[in-house]
Amino acid sequence: MALKDIYATSLSLLTDLYQLTMAYGYWKSGKAEQEAVFHLYFRKNPFTGGYTIAAGLEHVVQYLQDLRFRDEDLAYLASLKGSQGQPLFEQGFLDYLRNMEFSCSVDAVPEGTVVFPSEPLIRVTGPLLQAQLIETPLLTILNFQTLIATKAARIVDAAKGDQVIEFGMRRAQGIDGALSAARAAYIGGVSATSDLLAGQHYNIPVRGTHAHSWVQAFDSEEEAFEAYGDAFPQDTVFLVDTYDTLEGVKKAISTAQKLGPKGFKLGGIRLDSGDLTYLSVEARKLLDAAGFTDTNIVASNDLDERLITHLKQEGAKINVWGIGTKMVTAYDQPALGGVYKLAALRTEQGDWEYKIKLSEQLVKTSNPGKLQVRRYMDDSGYMADMIYNQLESLPDHLRIVDPLDSTRRKSIAPDTKYKELLVPVFEQGKLTYTLPDLQSIQATAKEELSKLHESIRRYLNPHSYPAGLEESLHHYKTALILKLRNE
Amino acid sequence: MALKDIYATSLSLLTDLYQLTMAYGYWKSGKAEQEAVFHLYFRKNPFTGGYTIAAGLEHVVQYLQDLRFRDEDLAYLASLKGSQGQPLFEQGFLDYLRNMEFSCSVDAVPEGTVVFPSEPLIRVTGPLLQAQLIETPLLTILNFQTLIATKAARIVDAAKGDQVIEFGMRRAQGIDGALSAARAAYIGGVSATSDLLAGQHYNIPVRGTHAHSWVQAFDSEEEAFEAYGDAFPQDTVFLVDTYDTLEGVKKAISTAQKLGPKGFKLGGIRLDSGDLTYLSVEARKLLDAAGFTDTNIVASNDLDERLITHLKQEGAKINVWGIGTKMVTAYDQPALGGVYKLAALRTEQGDWEYKIKLSEQLVKTSNPGKLQVRRYMDDSGYMADMIYNQLESLPDHLRIVDPLDSTRRKSIAPDTKYKELLVPVFEQGKLTYTLPDLQSIQATAKEELSKLHESIRRYLNPHSYPAGLEESLHHYKTALILKLRNE
Repeated sequence: MALKDIYATSLSLLTDLYQLTMAYGYWKSGKAEQEAVFHLYFRKNPFTGGYTIAAGLEHVVQYLQDLRFRDEDLAYLASLKGSQGQPLFEQGFLDYLRNMEFSCSVDAVPEGTVVFPSEPLIRVTGPLLQAQLIETPLLTILNFQTLIATKAARIVDAAKGDQVIEFGMRRAQGIDGALSAARAAYIGGVSATSDLLAGQHYNIPVRGTHAHSWVQAFDSEEEAFEAYGDAFPQDTVFLVDTYDTLEGVKKAISTAQKLGPKGFKLGGIRLDSGDLTYLSVEARKLLDAAGFTDTNIVASNDLDERLITHLKQEGAKINVWGIGTKMVTAYDQPALGGVYKLAALRTEQGDWEYKIKLSEQLVKTSNPGKLQVRRYMDDSGYMADMIYNQLESLPDHLRIVDPLDSTRRKSIAPDTKYKELLVPVFEQGKLTYTLPDLQSIQATAKEELSKLHESIRRYLNPHSYPAGLEESLHHYKTALILKLRNE
Repeated sequence: MALKDIYATSLSLLTDLYQLTMAYGYWKSGKAEQEAVFHLYFRKNPFTGGYTIAAGLEHVVQYLQDLRFRDEDLAYLASLKGSQGQPLFEQGFLDYLRNMEFSCSVDAVPEGTVVFPSEPLIRVTGPLLQAQLIETPLLTILNFQTLIATKAARIVDAAKGDQVIEFGMRRAQGIDGALSAARAAYIGGVSATSDLLAGQHYNIPVRGTHAHSWVQAFDSEEEAFEAYGDAFPQDTVFLVDTYDTLEGVKKAISTAQKLGPKGFKLGGIRLDSGDLTYLSVEARKLLDAAGFTDTNIVASNDLDERLITHLKQEGAKINVWGIGTKMVTAYDQPALGGVYKLAALRTEQGDWEYKIKLSEQLVKTSNPGKLQVRRYMDDSGYMADMIYNQLESLPDHLRIVDPLDSTRRKSIAPDTKYKELLVPVFEQGKLTYTLPDLQSIQATAKEELSKLHESIRRYLNPHSYPAGLEESLHHYKTALILKLRNE
């Protein structure tokens, strides 16, 4: 079946088999409707960076709105057999799925918000079966888009005001890898994409130059440039390295001079190989000498935040950056290790029971409760984040415990301004959140980053932003770990 | 617009803007219908390995079969403006696109075939405009699936006959990142996937265990195991590390003993953290002592071919490997650098003109002609590959030139058995190829790998498989480079 048709029908089986086997187990053991709280969070900022940009919520919302088991999904589940040939699932369970309507409450951090390790990006409250079932798609969508938005933000930061254009489709991990990366990169601050499908559906500005094959298809480079200039008289960018880069620059200039009287304007030249510092400096001289002082120098060739910083330090005269592979695959760390953990379960008596998952490594032990994140700020920006349990009342004197050294605590002055990061998205299955458009999300990310101290945005060895557990939650968690370890 | 709806309508804009601007340029300069030959190939085996497994052709075929510009695509293109507000494309060009029917001939290496650097995975012959337009989607699809099939083959090889199960959906790069990775990993030799959507649509066996949250949702680990065992009496795998791994193993055993009389069979236990060698050895002892000698030990936790090899060398008692992130994102090299280059163009006189793209690095200079790959073999396996130009006649005495050292040449004895790698897929736009099912493709890959010498399959420092240009093509290319450099 073609990919197109898969997407066109139903994505309800976009999950791991074990979500369905657990769902069946919960159904059989009478726990399907027990109220549960799950959090989706990550444990480390990607790229050894100091921050992360939340992205992907819109796709999560679309997925959840469309979540229901159709006949073909149920037929497939009915066809699954155990090793003895018996059906894996009873018909009663499949009927339950057929009638299931999504009824969880979902709170989430708006897209474009800066977030830090252990902070829930999404909190799901609702029937255990449903809240468990959606683990995998939520992780797939948010892990990837959050990763790429963060990577893009780092690259845009390194470009220091220069335009950054995403054109990684050909190296992306599949079709949605390209589409979602274009969306997330735009959130992270790129100006445009080369991806027409992303342009069409997400209203992202599209940009492009031409390929080497264009030049090869003509008898000479001059002829190729002239034909392209005839077709696109405005702001055209010539790729100059098909044969010899600096000769290519000269031909771009002579073409522009020749076509100038017809109204042609040379938008830029693009370098795609070789020593970009040397070539851009020499190209700038040639362009300036010919009066093309406004002409951009676009560079591409496996660039990322480290290389951009390095090229700038070397004095490269590049002012537009075309970024592909390294951004759309997050090459130096191609996955964000986001997880989805059970944190509370309501007993038959109606009380909440808090849950954690132990681990040899403390950082891998999950946090109990129904968590919210309070972000404190003053006029100069964000100061600290406090993760706390909304089901318990807060003490009068608030302190945040350093997650890496619990003997370090930070007191919060009583009148400090704050905002709560998680906002309601679904209430008992009903969408209550208005999805912002992509332009607003990009603006949010830009504003959020401006509120982080420069030392936290640094791409190498950044300072740690203070984010930790509220002190009484920390105490509760510690006691729970000790209790479970002693059992 | 939801992802589902994007895919449901048209993927014809799944390409870079510059493909459309070049198309417009070709249309305007009267070159749209000029016959061209393009090759899609990569320059280096991924993962510093010795081979690559071709994958993704089925999705390419589906994409090309469905390629046509619909009203909404054309409306989007019509809406694109240049910097002065003028439409980017003339109406005549959009009409041309509306009436365009895919009419290229496509030859391709069947999925599952082992391939080597510079060998065309796909050759497209047809109108320049069309052949150029499809560059990006072809690269997106083939780069990714080829990368993952190769990664999976390396991991399966390291597992030395143990089962390998793919369960990386949650860390995949988007929805299609998960789906296509499941498909490609199956081609590379994994036994099953956790991804139900891939199971449903690609008929891949699905497998799974349960999450930590299942254990947390019950008052005790014993209770959790018992409830799961009740729901799934056959071949159930218990995840044992929610609280303490070896205690978990003991509880899995006692549960199996308790449920045994009801017909329960313990399929396996799964380790997901900690020292996998130590824990698997101790778990094996506990299981064997209790008579569960058939029970599998499944391990997961960021594993790849290196770690599997290492664990085996250390004596780990693991016999089923659950692989996620490192396989589905090809973590250590998340992109294959496949490229798509113009190699020949027919002149108005009807002659073929061969084309290359120069580069400072010889490996980046493309090969001219209309290429085919001849693979020589004897009874013990594959011997050498010869890339040659099908538009020229072959000399009597065939020699292959080493791509890294052109003074080294390999003669081919006259009666050596061979096969041609590229087979017809589309003839002038008409599909003539019967797509094999996924099971056959997996079998092809297995057979192909068995024909490579072990030293080429080695995951570290493999031998180089002899693959190079046929001598007269090499001479022609060298002469062409010199001519272009001297111009």
